[in-house]
Amino acid sequence: MENLYEKTLSKEQIYSGKIIDLYVEEVELPNKKTGKREIVKHPGAVAVLAVTNEGKILMVEQFRKPLEKTIIEIPAGKLEKGEDPLACAKRELMEETGYSCESMVSIGSFYTSPGFADELIYLYFTDTLVKQGEQMTDEDEFINVLEVSVNEAKEMMQDERIHDAKTAYSVMYMELKHAVEK
Amino acid sequence: MENLYEKTLSKEQIYSGKIIDLYVEEVELPNKKTGKREIVKHPGAVAVLAVTNEGKILMVEQFRKPLEKTIIEIPAGKLEKGEDPLACAKRELMEETGYSCESMVSIGSFYTSPGFADELIYLYFTDTLVKQGEQMTDEDEFINVLEVSVNEAKEMMQDERIHDAKTAYSVMYMELKHAVEK
Repeated sequence: MENLYEKTLSKEQIYSGKIIDLYVEEVELPNKKTGKREIVKHPGAVAVLAVTNEGKILMVEQFRKPLEKTIIEIPAGKLEKGEDPLACAKRELMEETGYSCESMVSIGSFYTSPGFADELIYLYFTDTLVKQGEQMTDEDEFINVLEVSVNEAKEMMQDERIHDAKTAYSVMYMELKHAVEK
Repeated sequence: MENLYEKTLSKEQIYSGKIIDLYVEEVELPNKKTGKREIVKHPGAVAVLAVTNEGKILMVEQFRKPLEKTIIEIPAGKLEKGEDPLACAKRELMEETGYSCESMVSIGSFYTSPGFADELIYLYFTDTLVKQGEQMTDEDEFINVLEVSVNEAKEMMQDERIHDAKTAYSVMYMELKHAVEK
């Protein structure tokens, strides 16, 4: 099997921001030529597939400036420095929806855009929700909380109100869970 | 329902690159305060879930500099300016694997990282592959082609050789397809 490694020859930091940093690296390609890689550094994130006693999925509606539109997603947020992903998932669920849970399990993780970014999302599942109170979002975060059935979520995927990877994955996870349990 | 819109007050281009551009925007938040949004602009991408006559998924192994490791993904690539996503999907499949196909259908699209990027991936499915020849990759693209059963792909997700959103979604798509067809 061919060696695919790309060695860093030089690295320039273009931007250091609140959420992302941007680097441009010159690399040595497997054929010994040089290439350029644009790399967004991100602290990583968590997302929670949270199912109520009625079998509905907790979702949040949020304006996403990069898309210039509002979409409906499962609760999620970025990792604080050094934060444990499970603790982060419980914190984000509480902050965005006002729910805690008795137990929460990992259902995998994935890189969102491995071609240009190192963002890794840790995905969790819970169906042991306990309503604690109202949402307590960050000062620059504005969201509406929704409870959505799997069929409603599939409709929302059709008309692109749901339109992001982690939520599409989670809806399919529920579909597969139901198909297997039948 | 609360109005969640964030109006752009000012916009600064930080970087213009080969694959991505970076902007920082000052926005007016729903509570009339100001906030900052870091936004990566990306041309969009396609990915192809391509299944052979033997029921195996075509995958490509590729070094991903942002992750500093090699992962296994379904064939994918970014859209050229003005390119039709379906045409792009057929082109990328041919370039990366040497396969054409008799028909290819859309199985949805999703934003990979709506918090900081506008990258939209269009996902296609084909099971009518025709081997045409060898791969013909871009000059800075080095990949190995693999044929992977759904069970092997699930194992690869467990040990994180498969570790990106579009491929995880596609493996689950096949699992659901098999579960429903049973």
